[in-house]
Amino acid sequence: MSISPDELNKLRKEIDQIDSELVNLLARRAQVTTKVGQYKSQAGLPIYVPEREAELISKRRAQAEEQKVSPVLVEDLLRRIMRESYQTQHVDYLCTNPAIKKIVVIGGAGALGRVFVDMFTRSGYQVDVLEKDDWPDAEQIFSNAGLVVVAVPIKLTETTIEQLTALPTECILADITSTKEKPLLAMMKAHKGPVVGLHPMFGPDVSSLVKQVVVICHGRQAEDYQWLMEQMRIWGAILQEVEAKEHDDAMVFIQVMRHFCSFVFGSHLASANPDLQRLVSLSSPIYRLELSMVGRLFAQNPALYADIIFDNRDSLVRLTEFSDKFTQALNLVEKGDKGEFIKQFFKVGEWFGDYSKQCLTSSKKLLLKADDDRSITAKK
Amino acid sequence: MSISPDELNKLRKEIDQIDSELVNLLARRAQVTTKVGQYKSQAGLPIYVPEREAELISKRRAQAEEQKVSPVLVEDLLRRIMRESYQTQHVDYLCTNPAIKKIVVIGGAGALGRVFVDMFTRSGYQVDVLEKDDWPDAEQIFSNAGLVVVAVPIKLTETTIEQLTALPTECILADITSTKEKPLLAMMKAHKGPVVGLHPMFGPDVSSLVKQVVVICHGRQAEDYQWLMEQMRIWGAILQEVEAKEHDDAMVFIQVMRHFCSFVFGSHLASANPDLQRLVSLSSPIYRLELSMVGRLFAQNPALYADIIFDNRDSLVRLTEFSDKFTQALNLVEKGDKGEFIKQFFKVGEWFGDYSKQCLTSSKKLLLKADDDRSITAKK
Repeated sequence: MSISPDELNKLRKEIDQIDSELVNLLARRAQVTTKVGQYKSQAGLPIYVPEREAELISKRRAQAEEQKVSPVLVEDLLRRIMRESYQTQHVDYLCTNPAIKKIVVIGGAGALGRVFVDMFTRSGYQVDVLEKDDWPDAEQIFSNAGLVVVAVPIKLTETTIEQLTALPTECILADITSTKEKPLLAMMKAHKGPVVGLHPMFGPDVSSLVKQVVVICHGRQAEDYQWLMEQMRIWGAILQEVEAKEHDDAMVFIQVMRHFCSFVFGSHLASANPDLQRLVSLSSPIYRLELSMVGRLFAQNPALYADIIFDNRDSLVRLTEFSDKFTQALNLVEKGDKGEFIKQFFKVGEWFGDYSKQCLTSSKKLLLKADDDRSITAKK
Repeated sequence: MSISPDELNKLRKEIDQIDSELVNLLARRAQVTTKVGQYKSQAGLPIYVPEREAELISKRRAQAEEQKVSPVLVEDLLRRIMRESYQTQHVDYLCTNPAIKKIVVIGGAGALGRVFVDMFTRSGYQVDVLEKDDWPDAEQIFSNAGLVVVAVPIKLTETTIEQLTALPTECILADITSTKEKPLLAMMKAHKGPVVGLHPMFGPDVSSLVKQVVVICHGRQAEDYQWLMEQMRIWGAILQEVEAKEHDDAMVFIQVMRHFCSFVFGSHLASANPDLQRLVSLSSPIYRLELSMVGRLFAQNPALYADIIFDNRDSLVRLTEFSDKFTQALNLVEKGDKGEFIKQFFKVGEWFGDYSKQCLTSSKKLLLKADDDRSITAKK
């Protein structure tokens, strides 16, 4: 079999033709899904319906197998296409409680506050923002409020809540702080009506709430804020209900420990001062990803991370435990005791159980995606 | 505007129809790219041609803009499709040096050794594997060898190399160990002919070498192993040439520190014993990714990580520095000194420079991809 250079050009033109048809298909698909989005918005149906997604994908996987196309490829492409439609279609959302006269977001000009202001507004609610200069008008701003959301920095949360003693009784009081025990207690004390603690587990840069986690810590009169939970579900969020104490216990591992370790890792790098460009160019995808998890921290707001690390009651205890573990492991390196290292490695592996295998599989998939564009990986 | 439930079903059928056409397109595209692959294989052209990729993508992005389709979506899809063709098409590769009679891979039955045996075989070389029981026949196995690759575990590398004093003079001696100074010295001492140290920056689970980094540390007579470098480029690898010392200096940060910290993090989690399922379910994508970077370590071979950590000459010094940094930062938490934390945070941010912003941007993109299937994120 032999192909000439002319033939190669012909084949490349054919590829261009197919890719052009692909773009046409995407344009057609977007027109249809926009209509679906409008219908869902009118009917108050959730944007993200896992069952429909699963059905759609399984039909196309089956077709792919028949046509000797990789089903994994087809699934990856469809999921990417669906993500796009979630993000672009839903300009307006169904309002789950039109009886609510007004929503006040305290600190609604802040980064994460703005996300909620935007989502409530796009769901047809009247939203007022209360910033620190507006406190003289607080009484008027709070009158008629059906929901007040406290979206100020952690360190101001409790003092802010303490000022909320004169809300309308039927008004729901909520906060979005990243610790939950203390703010919830403060809200229960300040306000006699419905109370709920929220922790949105995402940053202000999300382009939609689809598949994002919001932690719910119930305070009082949960039946009165069902509509709020329903509203967030319509936005596409995944709600996780948990006790405030359990939430705070978990966050020391989820947030504090990881951020603190990244901070120390970054500090160590900066002081050891290796050639960063060389580190990046010598790194394989997995190492570039590890390094970028550290690097990304320092492009963000330090005050937020200071609050998260310094304001969790368990930080000091857990970080001290970690430091002890580090010293113990360092002793193994000093003694050259690989045997004990391997023994402990297996023990930790047992604790992780199947999860570590799942992590390996999913991170491999993810690295392939990262490598599609080398965005995390590029040598600059 | 109003759409009935019947209309919704009609719209969904239309989406199914479009998706089905998408699968047809992919099948057609694969037929064409297979032909391109065959042509490239015959002509010895590299599989991965960045310029052709860039041109193809920019044409489709322009078309997308015209048709009001997201150019980012189109680029993501095309890159994913191209990744598939790199992986599936290239069964055979051009042989850059048909004069080579034989390649011997010592430890070629090991995980990473197998990758090289496979790639050389698919490029038309005769490949012999030498495992520990084969040493009595070593003389015969090495006779006529044009390239000997040492692919044994780190701890055996130097003793293995010391036995290679009787290779044919024109034979190239190479190793693929993750440290480079000592093996390279050992190779230079044992063998008088061409010598090169390689560090493939990927694990044994890669499905192709496209875009993977291979570090090259030159030893002697580089002109004699140009064909080997060209061969790896044809496989799609990105070659990074660097001094052995600089390589080893960098690896303590790239490999040792990250693995060690993940090990300690995992040990700490296992001993503090929080509810792992709860941590996962309460985590947003970025935290699930962070956790999975730790979890994935423990699904792998501990001996490999023990070798990487214990056998780097700088491990103890760098890990001790890290431990000191950790203690210093812990003191800030103990004193509640957020001000100093923020000051140091900014300083580290300055050291990272633009890289940290790039990391933030690229990790956001990556998280969206991770979230397409929630593979890293699923609540089990």
